[in-house]
Amino acid sequence: MLRYDECVQRVPVRVKPKSYEAVIGSGLLVSAADEIIAALGRSGSRAQCFVVTVPPVRKHWEKALLESLKKANIQFHVLEMRDGERHKNISTVEHLAEQMVKLGADRGCFVVALGGGVVGDVAGMLASIYMRGVQFVQVPTTFLAQVDASVGGKTGVNLASGKNLVGTFHHPRLVLADTATLATLPEREFRSGLYEALKCGVIRNAAIFQFMEKERERILARNAEAMEWLISECIKVKAEVVEADERESDLRRILNFGHTIGHALEAETSYRYFLHGEAVAWGMVAASMIAAAMQKTTAATAQRIISSVLAYAPLPKVEVKSKNIARRILSDKKTANGVAHFVLPCEIGKVQISNTVPQKTVLQAVDELRYLSRA
Amino acid sequence: MLRYDECVQRVPVRVKPKSYEAVIGSGLLVSAADEIIAALGRSGSRAQCFVVTVPPVRKHWEKALLESLKKANIQFHVLEMRDGERHKNISTVEHLAEQMVKLGADRGCFVVALGGGVVGDVAGMLASIYMRGVQFVQVPTTFLAQVDASVGGKTGVNLASGKNLVGTFHHPRLVLADTATLATLPEREFRSGLYEALKCGVIRNAAIFQFMEKERERILARNAEAMEWLISECIKVKAEVVEADERESDLRRILNFGHTIGHALEAETSYRYFLHGEAVAWGMVAASMIAAAMQKTTAATAQRIISSVLAYAPLPKVEVKSKNIARRILSDKKTANGVAHFVLPCEIGKVQISNTVPQKTVLQAVDELRYLSRA
Repeated sequence: MLRYDECVQRVPVRVKPKSYEAVIGSGLLVSAADEIIAALGRSGSRAQCFVVTVPPVRKHWEKALLESLKKANIQFHVLEMRDGERHKNISTVEHLAEQMVKLGADRGCFVVALGGGVVGDVAGMLASIYMRGVQFVQVPTTFLAQVDASVGGKTGVNLASGKNLVGTFHHPRLVLADTATLATLPEREFRSGLYEALKCGVIRNAAIFQFMEKERERILARNAEAMEWLISECIKVKAEVVEADERESDLRRILNFGHTIGHALEAETSYRYFLHGEAVAWGMVAASMIAAAMQKTTAATAQRIISSVLAYAPLPKVEVKSKNIARRILSDKKTANGVAHFVLPCEIGKVQISNTVPQKTVLQAVDELRYLSRA
Repeated sequence: MLRYDECVQRVPVRVKPKSYEAVIGSGLLVSAADEIIAALGRSGSRAQCFVVTVPPVRKHWEKALLESLKKANIQFHVLEMRDGERHKNISTVEHLAEQMVKLGADRGCFVVALGGGVVGDVAGMLASIYMRGVQFVQVPTTFLAQVDASVGGKTGVNLASGKNLVGTFHHPRLVLADTATLATLPEREFRSGLYEALKCGVIRNAAIFQFMEKERERILARNAEAMEWLISECIKVKAEVVEADERESDLRRILNFGHTIGHALEAETSYRYFLHGEAVAWGMVAASMIAAAMQKTTAATAQRIISSVLAYAPLPKVEVKSKNIARRILSDKKTANGVAHFVLPCEIGKVQISNTVPQKTVLQAVDELRYLSRA
């Protein structure tokens, strides 16, 4: 049997003011407290800990985490929030902050997010604004949160008028991705995360892309080794990009591959029809079509990306009006001064940003998505 | 007559990631747009501007600012919030953010705070979280905001359970302190700000303290030159401290002179009895008494500070129970891991932090405040 430290991957995320590690492995929750104390230093063991989570995650994974905290004599409270994107709002953050005050949380405390992307975004925002910022630990329990959301320091909540419209940059002190938690993930949610992994392959790391082409069966079976490799490699991509450009002014934009049209698809269907990763999947298909139409890539490369996305189908059908999508793209928060940016693939592992995609080409690509999803 | 650039003071605030200037002078609002464009660069003139303000300030000072923006062809919207500390909450920030979305605000926009500390705190928080941060300009119109709140990058709002319990660090790109706006400030509010100026003298700059001892008449008459000198010098103190320590972990704490007991006095009277500066004034008196009792300073120095505070009276009477104040100090957000910190004067211009003030000494000092305010 492997020793603990032989079966975990450690990916450093070198950011200012302080670097941190993402630790990836199966069964990590059991030793969460050791990792937390190592990351937070002495203050970690004496400080109050506030675990933010949702009922379904709590049911399966709270026990392992809390027992570890208990053993290490870390004083903790569990703060439960309601599950789902529609509770990712300012009121939820305010309510959690009020609870923390009542429980005597001071500046020395830290917040742990135990859950998927919604929990991470809300708990991260909470940690970033509570008394102007307390320490934060991410314990992502979905594939999507493990490969993407938990690293990079973005936090945010929705407004009535749109998704993620308010938020902060607040890096965690530690990311603990226990691949064992993927076992309880519903099939559709798991697949939805895989598209973001595919994205990491297209934008920067051809090895990820090839692995996902070849190892489809093992990946869909959630094989522990495959998960660990895939998650570690995706986090490396994310970490590299974030290190190079913390503020999304330039390089970080490549992470938005598939997101320009993806966000518009989500918004147009009121966030009730597509899972985030599914919308991004269609967005990647559309961006590949646009890249081919604009001769930024070959038809063969575009087709290869599209095929890989569809290999991880089923995807919900696209049944929206293309002109509505075009309109929504212009009101996206990533659109600065009225200019929309698209991330277009050049070859597998390499993309470029374009702000000159003609409206006509966007309309055409969305029409093709509709056609493709009917097939 | 002096030329424009001869009658303004410019104080650089050297912080990361980008330094900015505080500009102090009479009549600055008229040329606000030029200053904004100079500070924000080309993007300033093309970007949408959102002016956050409150009705009383709007009535007197909106016109000068808006005309300047118009002349410079800056596209702007005025967002009015309700006046007063009790509207300094998360709902107000959310409501303003929703309005910005509806008005088409994208990442390239900037927020201007036109008003006192409440407006600055709310608008700063708004700017810091809107789409994860847009540029921000402070146009403080109260003495307190000009000498203190507008510089340093602290933003924040209240929770039901306490003041400034959530917030961010988000530096403005520019601070425009037009001393002409002080003309419309109610007497009590103006005096309340003067105590913070006195604080700057005690903690770091004896010249400010001496100026306030000698020039009481001119200061209370709001003489333009006196105001400009005093505000510039106080901003210099604040800038130096902030530059040396952006995160309040150490040096920045000296700015809390008078605030440990001051905050407790405000909280104990539900924020309805003292103005912030008035509570800090009593806090400085108490801290001076504590310093003398603990032999951190001479009785003469303590008395000199107390006399200067009282020279700018009247102050509302202290009629609280000292044991309630002691209890509140322990629940203050500056209290980490149950240890309260006091800033104690050693000599005029020099303070030290103490975390060993006995409870008894605190109780005694508050009792003396009650006694003193009855006299």
